[in-house]
Amino acid sequence: MDFSPSARAAELTGAVRDFIDAEIAPVERALHGARAGEPVSWQVPDEVRALQRQARERGLWNLFAELSNVDYAPIAEATGWSFLAPYVFNCNAPDTGNMEVLEKYGTPEQKDRWLTPLLDGTIRSGFAMTEPAVASSDATNMQLTAVLDGDEVVLDGRKWWTTGVGHPDCRVLIVMGLTDPDAHRHARHSMVLVPIDTPGVKVERMLDTMGFLDEPFGHGEVSFTGVRVPVANIIAGPGQAFAIAQGRLGPGRVHHAMRMIGLAERALHLACERGLARTAFGKPIMNLGGNRERVADARIAINSTRLLIQHAAWKLDTGGPMAALSEVSQIKVAAPNVAQQVIDFAIQIHGGAGLSSDFPLASAWTAARAVRIADGPDEVHRGLIARLELTNHGAAR
Amino acid sequence: MDFSPSARAAELTGAVRDFIDAEIAPVERALHGARAGEPVSWQVPDEVRALQRQARERGLWNLFAELSNVDYAPIAEATGWSFLAPYVFNCNAPDTGNMEVLEKYGTPEQKDRWLTPLLDGTIRSGFAMTEPAVASSDATNMQLTAVLDGDEVVLDGRKWWTTGVGHPDCRVLIVMGLTDPDAHRHARHSMVLVPIDTPGVKVERMLDTMGFLDEPFGHGEVSFTGVRVPVANIIAGPGQAFAIAQGRLGPGRVHHAMRMIGLAERALHLACERGLARTAFGKPIMNLGGNRERVADARIAINSTRLLIQHAAWKLDTGGPMAALSEVSQIKVAAPNVAQQVIDFAIQIHGGAGLSSDFPLASAWTAARAVRIADGPDEVHRGLIARLELTNHGAAR
Amino acid sequence: MDFSPSARAAELTGAVRDFIDAEIAPVERALHGARAGEPVSWQVPDEVRALQRQARERGLWNLFAELSNVDYAPIAEATGWSFLAPYVFNCNAPDTGNMEVLEKYGTPEQKDRWLTPLLDGTIRSGFAMTEPAVASSDATNMQLTAVLDGDEVVLDGRKWWTTGVGHPDCRVLIVMGLTDPDAHRHARHSMVLVPIDTPGVKVERMLDTMGFLDEPFGHGEVSFTGVRVPVANIIAGPGQAFAIAQGRLGPGRVHHAMRMIGLAERALHLACERGLARTAFGKPIMNLGGNRERVADARIAINSTRLLIQHAAWKLDTGGPMAALSEVSQIKVAAPNVAQQVIDFAIQIHGGAGLSSDFPLASAWTAARAVRIADGPDEVHRGLIARLELTNHGAAR
Amino acid sequence: MDFSPSARAAELTGAVRDFIDAEIAPVERALHGARAGEPVSWQVPDEVRALQRQARERGLWNLFAELSNVDYAPIAEATGWSFLAPYVFNCNAPDTGNMEVLEKYGTPEQKDRWLTPLLDGTIRSGFAMTEPAVASSDATNMQLTAVLDGDEVVLDGRKWWTTGVGHPDCRVLIVMGLTDPDAHRHARHSMVLVPIDTPGVKVERMLDTMGFLDEPFGHGEVSFTGVRVPVANIIAGPGQAFAIAQGRLGPGRVHHAMRMIGLAERALHLACERGLARTAFGKPIMNLGGNRERVADARIAINSTRLLIQHAAWKLDTGGPMAALSEVSQIKVAAPNVAQQVIDFAIQIHGGAGLSSDFPLASAWTAARAVRIADGPDEVHRGLIARLELTNHGAAR
Repeated sequence: MDFSPSARAAELTGAVRDFIDAEIAPVERALHGARAGEPVSWQVPDEVRALQRQARERGLWNLFAELSNVDYAPIAEATGWSFLAPYVFNCNAPDTGNMEVLEKYGTPEQKDRWLTPLLDGTIRSGFAMTEPAVASSDATNMQLTAVLDGDEVVLDGRKWWTTGVGHPDCRVLIVMGLTDPDAHRHARHSMVLVPIDTPGVKVERMLDTMGFLDEPFGHGEVSFTGVRVPVANIIAGPGQAFAIAQGRLGPGRVHHAMRMIGLAERALHLACERGLARTAFGKPIMNLGGNRERVADARIAINSTRLLIQHAAWKLDTGGPMAALSEVSQIKVAAPNVAQQVIDFAIQIHGGAGLSSDFPLASAWTAARAVRIADGPDEVHRGLIARLELTNHGAAR
Repeated sequence: MDFSPSARAAELTGAVRDFIDAEIAPVERALHGARAGEPVSWQVPDEVRALQRQARERGLWNLFAELSNVDYAPIAEATGWSFLAPYVFNCNAPDTGNMEVLEKYGTPEQKDRWLTPLLDGTIRSGFAMTEPAVASSDATNMQLTAVLDGDEVVLDGRKWWTTGVGHPDCRVLIVMGLTDPDAHRHARHSMVLVPIDTPGVKVERMLDTMGFLDEPFGHGEVSFTGVRVPVANIIAGPGQAFAIAQGRLGPGRVHHAMRMIGLAERALHLACERGLARTAFGKPIMNLGGNRERVADARIAINSTRLLIQHAAWKLDTGGPMAALSEVSQIKVAAPNVAQQVIDFAIQIHGGAGLSSDFPLASAWTAARAVRIADGPDEVHRGLIARLELTNHGAAR
Repeated sequence: MDFSPSARAAELTGAVRDFIDAEIAPVERALHGARAGEPVSWQVPDEVRALQRQARERGLWNLFAELSNVDYAPIAEATGWSFLAPYVFNCNAPDTGNMEVLEKYGTPEQKDRWLTPLLDGTIRSGFAMTEPAVASSDATNMQLTAVLDGDEVVLDGRKWWTTGVGHPDCRVLIVMGLTDPDAHRHARHSMVLVPIDTPGVKVERMLDTMGFLDEPFGHGEVSFTGVRVPVANIIAGPGQAFAIAQGRLGPGRVHHAMRMIGLAERALHLACERGLARTAFGKPIMNLGGNRERVADARIAINSTRLLIQHAAWKLDTGGPMAALSEVSQIKVAAPNVAQQVIDFAIQIHGGAGLSSDFPLASAWTAARAVRIADGPDEVHRGLIARLELTNHGAAR
Repeated sequence: MDFSPSARAAELTGAVRDFIDAEIAPVERALHGARAGEPVSWQVPDEVRALQRQARERGLWNLFAELSNVDYAPIAEATGWSFLAPYVFNCNAPDTGNMEVLEKYGTPEQKDRWLTPLLDGTIRSGFAMTEPAVASSDATNMQLTAVLDGDEVVLDGRKWWTTGVGHPDCRVLIVMGLTDPDAHRHARHSMVLVPIDTPGVKVERMLDTMGFLDEPFGHGEVSFTGVRVPVANIIAGPGQAFAIAQGRLGPGRVHHAMRMIGLAERALHLACERGLARTAFGKPIMNLGGNRERVADARIAINSTRLLIQHAAWKLDTGGPMAALSEVSQIKVAAPNVAQQVIDFAIQIHGGAGLSSDFPLASAWTAARAVRIADGPDEVHRGLIARLELTNHGAAR
């Protein structure tokens, strides 16, 4: 066993951290001025576009696509310290996942039209799976129809929590639709590339997460009414949605989980800073009650969860997604829960300030809370982990 | 022992519930349309003023002031089901606490000028204690000065989380200031009535709590620059701030805690409703995994905490605030934590919808989270409970 | 609402406490000398029989049978401070439950033969329900047969965790057996009075609970081979076992739960004592880390759970067992979990000593842990609470 | 990063597992017959001595001393499945730690006399640090004196929880004593080799841990009255006790922690087996309520904690004990808590059987509970982790 990062991972992680500290952080602080209760902007600030150009020049662009999961993991953690960083480095969800799908399952034409500009950062994309009318934790519930009609596929239905649809550069959605209700439950659905300007596609409204809109990406409720696209827009052919989802989600979950670790580290850092700087009852507040124990518990939880994620990344790299099913679900459960707990502690240490927009803690907490639901709620992943455990336990010893 | 409510409490609780269901709930649903990212209004909608008149006509007005703590407790719980109800019944914080202070410690002149219109609902008030520059969990830290100068008292400093200051009818603040830095640490501060239009009082900005502004009341950051008011505006005389705070907070904490129980009950109700109505993997989601156990745990936590609060109310009624110090701190810790846990479960059952503004859960969660900090963070109250326990344990048997 | 105890309850509780402190505690300390690894005695020490006589003379005998549940609750709590006390006051499980069954469902002959000497303390009894071969958390699983054969009932099968069977005065078992496998699932089983000297009854071995045998009562594994008793020994007639169990368990669970509260109070008391007396790193260990917070959490948990139990007792008294089904299950879950948590903290404060036989904490912890399984594991009770909640939630508001 | 074990570690781990399954497990099952309440034996059964010879022949002897911490870690985990295995492989505490001290700090004479026979398995040793009269979590509290008197050192005082002292082959104790009360607080104490037959050494009694005596090793209370040994018996010279303790404890804590992981894995394995085999309410009990979620949580906790330990082992190997201070304390906290939680779940799944001696769960739980106190309670380690975190957090980013 060797826990040291590769030379390349170490170097790039350092470069990413430096770039965040020196370039992104000041912009983020300046832009963070927008107040609750004021109208939000759905445009990309010029400063952010400038940061993207700069990152690209320094070779900090599309790193998720170039590195192994193990090597990319510490970079994902570093980007978790900043809300802007993933986008600046062209490593933000849902575009990364969509790019991976196109890279792995796309035809040359699909890659030309969508993957190239996505890697180039000139367009953005959305991912439309969850539906308002059904319990979407069970993906076989999805009701939006994607019916074959000659050389076209026709989509009818409604999605929500379609992340990325608010971005001014969003040009295409990957939509999961029901193609053959009589097939095996994991062969009924298809993934369809739908240009956002196709007639019948309508963004009905943008949804908030505990008051945050996550602009300029946002999460939309989108209706599809008689939306027609060529059959060639189906990725990997009809009925392949589940196979694609399985292949798509592993790396993305490693990214999310490591960003959660970054978020948790930042929260712990802020808690230590504030807890040592402020005094109550004659002591730094960090020395009151159980605060130090909570620092220790946070450190244990962060370290062990980071290792769990790195190990899952290594299993993905060495054994592929099917060998790492349980591991990927484990990190999907563990990471946001740890982040949520650490951020909650940091908020408490900050008092009222921790709940306000003066600190990034309230939005960090909301991000962690949302991840416990997005991409499958905790409970679904726990169910999968248990199923694999109970299948295998006979062979465990 | 007798756990049945008094006839009057039972009757009024029923009337309050009916009024909320029949009159307030429809207005609340209609007003709840405001979306995240849109400008908020700091005005009181006409419909709400109409509800206030109606409540008053039905004798559901100022009940907090008329009933014992035990009798008012179930009414406070009932109002916790609605964000509007406390204001509609003229039973909202911080006005209730301010009215109690004036009732108990005010001079006839102070009562005439401020208590009467507060009870009448024609004006609102704010409470200014927490400061941005110091750890305010230790109230002796407060630095805003309230210096005697002849027959005037002069205030200089800065407060934040001054709740109520955004309301268009807000006319007066109760401000805690440092009068004599050399006195005993619990005799240094005074409570001063400061009309909000006094020269030198400036609302610098309104603060958000996890994105929520809680309009039209709101929480303000307020600066005081050479603010002069007559010495007669000091409540109960200079140096009495701590004595007043002690007397003020008991009933208010019972109200807050019971509203948390109401909030938790509503969240559990919504969770049951949604959990039975939606299906995944072939079952109502309520029947999946540990969901039913979480319902049971919620029921146990809510019931035991409600009893804890009712018992604290009874101790306040029968023994006064000094006899119920530990009990009041116990409910201050227990109630928001229980509410937070139940609401978190309800959010999880709702999936993405639970985080959005489509349901009241995100703002309910935020309200519960804020109460863990407001009026003294959990840690301060735990410290007090432990101190009393360790002092008394020798006598426990 | 009135949280004050009745005059009689207050007086008797005081008398019970005084008797425990003055009379029982010294005997308990002296008897506690037996060391792990040494043979245990299944006899009743003379000192204990003397205490029983003394208790009876003072009118502290069979109080469970004389008082309402609400009035008996604080007495049960007081007896929880001592392992000997319940037996000394003739208020120990399983005899109390068996006496209640006989009182409520017994024929005059059954009462004469068994109830009278049980109330007199001249005999003891056992309760045989759980079986080693099946998951006994589902009582309908019970396989021991109790078949009618003319005017006799014949029992064949095996029970374990038959509490009380080790006592030298144990003369009778109440045995749950399967009479009619084709009846409704809640009408298949009967409760049969089986004198312990009936041919075919054999105590195979005594079971330990985490190393403790709980002598002289103990928990036995008992085989029944062609055991014949008259049909008149069936309590309330064939098929009535579930109806009896439902009626039997409410008060017993109040007793158990209140004893758990007593145990928790004692543990907290010991923790405070030790935590203040011992010093590490220059401070009383109680002032280190989060210890004081744990004292506060223990106080909150104990107080709220005590109130939950008292309320359940009140519901039993005022509405009967069917009106208090959820409440009784709630206390069955809450009380041992609270006790376990508080005792665990007390052990930690005591260090190694807390795990040894020098303090009563290890056996207290074991007692609490066992209650989480005995009389239905936590999970079964959570299931019942949830079922009732989901049935009723529509009517909750 | 590379998470695969070295070829040698993989091979030896396999051999150890096979040996445990094929040779040790049957002996363990046969010996486990001793019942609670019966006298225990302090002799080593012949079968166990035979297993030792066999293990040695197969090269599975003293592996802790031959392998790096990372390579030994999975072997330690494997031995955690069995209570006998560590001793059979000559890898049991406290002898391993004592051997490491002698190896690292011993003189050639000390090694000849004590290390060689310990490695040979012909003698056993004890470690005497904790004292009954003081809070021993603060090692500077230790009061037993070890005073220099010419070329002798004289020991006076009392220790307890001296593990290993009950073993028939125990020949020597390493005793921590106070030599110079005026020195720096970390230079006052010495470690002294005391042959157990030195006049003045008396084993006063053997202590139990929740009823378990852990024979034949056991934990003794030992008095030292005018005990004289040559100055040459002081390890590394007077005042070096703290320096030695720091160097001694790292590897031992890795061993302990990995054994806890082995214990947790075995408990989870038993829980799965029982949970699938038994049926209640028409389903395998594993499928009831939140049981499957608890399996998933156990899997997550075990995996992440195992990685935390392996990483700590790697840091010890690559950076030495001072580089791994926080990591070693992290695993000291995390491992027994995880084990305790998983074992508690396994007990609950087993019902009453889980608490009895029919399954190894009750003693496993006790072992895990004891580790939360032994070698420094959780709280002390949390304190150290927090101190290091707060010192370093400025440099964290």
